[in-house]
Amino acid sequence: MVININNFLNSRKNDSIMGYFQDLDHLDGLSISTTTANLYGNHRDDLVLFYFYKGANHASVYTQSKLISENIKWNLNINTKKIKALLVNTRNANAFTGKKGFKGIKILADELSNMLTEKQEEDEEKPEKIKSTDILFASTGTIGETFPTEKINACIPDLIKKLKYKQNKYIWMKAAMGILTTDLQPKLAMEECNIGNKPIKIYGIAKGSGMIFPNMATTLGFVFTDAAISAGVLKYLLKKNIKTTFNAISCDGDTSTNDMVSIFATGEANNSQINNVNDSKLEKFNNCLHAVLLNLAKRVAADGEGASKFVTVNTINCKTEEDAKKISFSIANSTLVKTAIAGEDPNWGRIIMAIGKANVKLMSNRLSIKFGSFSILEKGQLSNSYNEVDVANYMKDKKIDITVDLNIGKKNFTAYTMDLTKKYIEINTDYRS
Amino acid sequence: MVININNFLNSRKNDSIMGYFQDLDHLDGLSISTTTANLYGNHRDDLVLFYFYKGANHASVYTQSKLISENIKWNLNINTKKIKALLVNTRNANAFTGKKGFKGIKILADELSNMLTEKQEEDEEKPEKIKSTDILFASTGTIGETFPTEKINACIPDLIKKLKYKQNKYIWMKAAMGILTTDLQPKLAMEECNIGNKPIKIYGIAKGSGMIFPNMATTLGFVFTDAAISAGVLKYLLKKNIKTTFNAISCDGDTSTNDMVSIFATGEANNSQINNVNDSKLEKFNNCLHAVLLNLAKRVAADGEGASKFVTVNTINCKTEEDAKKISFSIANSTLVKTAIAGEDPNWGRIIMAIGKANVKLMSNRLSIKFGSFSILEKGQLSNSYNEVDVANYMKDKKIDITVDLNIGKKNFTAYTMDLTKKYIEINTDYRS
Repeated sequence: MVININNFLNSRKNDSIMGYFQDLDHLDGLSISTTTANLYGNHRDDLVLFYFYKGANHASVYTQSKLISENIKWNLNINTKKIKALLVNTRNANAFTGKKGFKGIKILADELSNMLTEKQEEDEEKPEKIKSTDILFASTGTIGETFPTEKINACIPDLIKKLKYKQNKYIWMKAAMGILTTDLQPKLAMEECNIGNKPIKIYGIAKGSGMIFPNMATTLGFVFTDAAISAGVLKYLLKKNIKTTFNAISCDGDTSTNDMVSIFATGEANNSQINNVNDSKLEKFNNCLHAVLLNLAKRVAADGEGASKFVTVNTINCKTEEDAKKISFSIANSTLVKTAIAGEDPNWGRIIMAIGKANVKLMSNRLSIKFGSFSILEKGQLSNSYNEVDVANYMKDKKIDITVDLNIGKKNFTAYTMDLTKKYIEINTDYRS
Repeated sequence: MVININNFLNSRKNDSIMGYFQDLDHLDGLSISTTTANLYGNHRDDLVLFYFYKGANHASVYTQSKLISENIKWNLNINTKKIKALLVNTRNANAFTGKKGFKGIKILADELSNMLTEKQEEDEEKPEKIKSTDILFASTGTIGETFPTEKINACIPDLIKKLKYKQNKYIWMKAAMGILTTDLQPKLAMEECNIGNKPIKIYGIAKGSGMIFPNMATTLGFVFTDAAISAGVLKYLLKKNIKTTFNAISCDGDTSTNDMVSIFATGEANNSQINNVNDSKLEKFNNCLHAVLLNLAKRVAADGEGASKFVTVNTINCKTEEDAKKISFSIANSTLVKTAIAGEDPNWGRIIMAIGKANVKLMSNRLSIKFGSFSILEKGQLSNSYNEVDVANYMKDKKIDITVDLNIGKKNFTAYTMDLTKKYIEINTDYRS
């Protein structure tokens, strides 16, 4: 299995629009295992267990959908101080599975807590009893199919047996691949910084693909740090940084019942715990957390279903950030813009169309538009330097930047998306067959 | 040319998901001509002139985009009592063409008004001087390309020469085809009723294809009647009926700079003019106008770019009509729902997803979903009668009905859309090439 992962690493590393993965390593306080409940019928890993043997402070943000999955309902009821484990399953979203779906989570939580308590008693000097309410769940996959409680439950002994104290890049890669659905690329990111004189690691993995808008649709993102930071501060940092990262990406304008981005802090780096959001020692950590979340979010957008190009939409100099966001997403979600980009066509008329429908007050004689560094429109007039051949050439790039300048204010927002290709249609017309 | 139209009629009539066209006939007070300015380079008709030789009362509704085309700006400035002509051009949207684009309209309006005044002097017993401000313009096509004023202007003599007093189904079909862009099907509809003891005709043509949401994007719709109805009453009727017809369709969630739906009343039926919206004689006319607008709107949706299926989304028993509309359009605009329908996959999980993201308060244990007459979800539970094979069979139909029942109120809304196919991507990645 290690060899397969290695092959994958070597063959895929250069494929991604986003470039090389970062290799993640040991992070103190966390053990990971993966296995297969054969939910896809091809023995790929579909279960990933994250075990915090001394517990972890935690914060999560969830889908804004009015219809949420059973595991999200479970998580929203958890108010334990230290999280002990997170179990992720793919293939089945456990959404619209009714009371039986929720009961399935309870069964898994009971089994996991019992077996992890046994493991604590074997391994730890000061074993703690682990409760079912110390465990979080993430699910992704098809909505409305019976949740495979029994199949997953039968795998728990294997998951626990495989937990090792020391982690390495292979287990991280297995974890990153174990949480994927239709994604083509695993998504990993890392940053390192200091808090005081203690070196701190921030590691993250994510999955995405279809339904990536707004507010993290079908996206799962998990960030792990060995820093000692209170749950309240983690919540503040996650909410603040999610706006310009996971909530700034869009694949198809659709939103899932299951979205979840979480951060877990084991505290094993032994810095003095940060309990105040204004603590100046937090600044570098905050910047690094933003970098990890943005790196993961961009990888999610770049690997949106069928994507052949990664698109950055900057809307600048607006009256409000909300206006900038509306325009950026109006462009990023427009199927006409996205198909033009897939066709490598510098069809800026469609950008105009998308700006116009965003319902933002603007002055058309101040509006400027750029594709990359090529000026298209300058204050409402076709740019003198505009040369369709040059811009058409630029459209062949794998990364396309669109900048819309309203020239009426000082607020900006950047959205990230991909092009809309025949491949997207193929993937989504065949998803369940 | 008549023979070509005939061939088209015979070969295409059965193709459309919407079934047979209605044949339109003479409508008193209106003359139509078409010609080619060769804007497409293949000598297809790209100009259509509608001439009201005794003038017509008129009302229009326009795009809600914040960036509107030059012809729409022109029309918004027109407050003449009787409209004398409408000129429609395709291939060029005259949007983001600046002052030159607006000046182009002025040049065409001057030329048209002069030549139509000459025609009045030749033809009419009581000739009237026609002013440039008596003329409306509709444009559709690419945004941001120089408006071909000279090419169009050079065709005005030909358009005027071809105007005949008597209209027939061939000239209507030529007009309906002359206003198309990427549409595959011309769109025509008609109804007849009485006002008092006078028989009344209501004829309409439309074009649509990409960018059909919300509020009539890239849609042009023109309705003509011989009834005598005041402009104020026409405005009231158009605004009222547009909500559940042209504003209830969605192709790709995009909106154009150029949308326009107009009604023209020549008054030649000689009923006593209706000046009051509460006039009881208006009821049948209102119903027939709604039928014409809905027929045209459905044809626009059914012929949305790449469409292989026509989809009706009923959302019923909501607290407010706005809630019902949000859910209907959330489903109708979801690329994941539309690709599932293209794949003939009864993937109701995606309906759940789209309902959830509509941001409408609901109770999941009251939610019911049907595909056609097949019950999928009943009050939050998978229906006992649900059989995926039956529903998968139903998904092979050309017309798919989705009904979402919130069971918490009494308000409904129906949206119309089409599936999202590889063909859509093909059309839109190649649009300008």
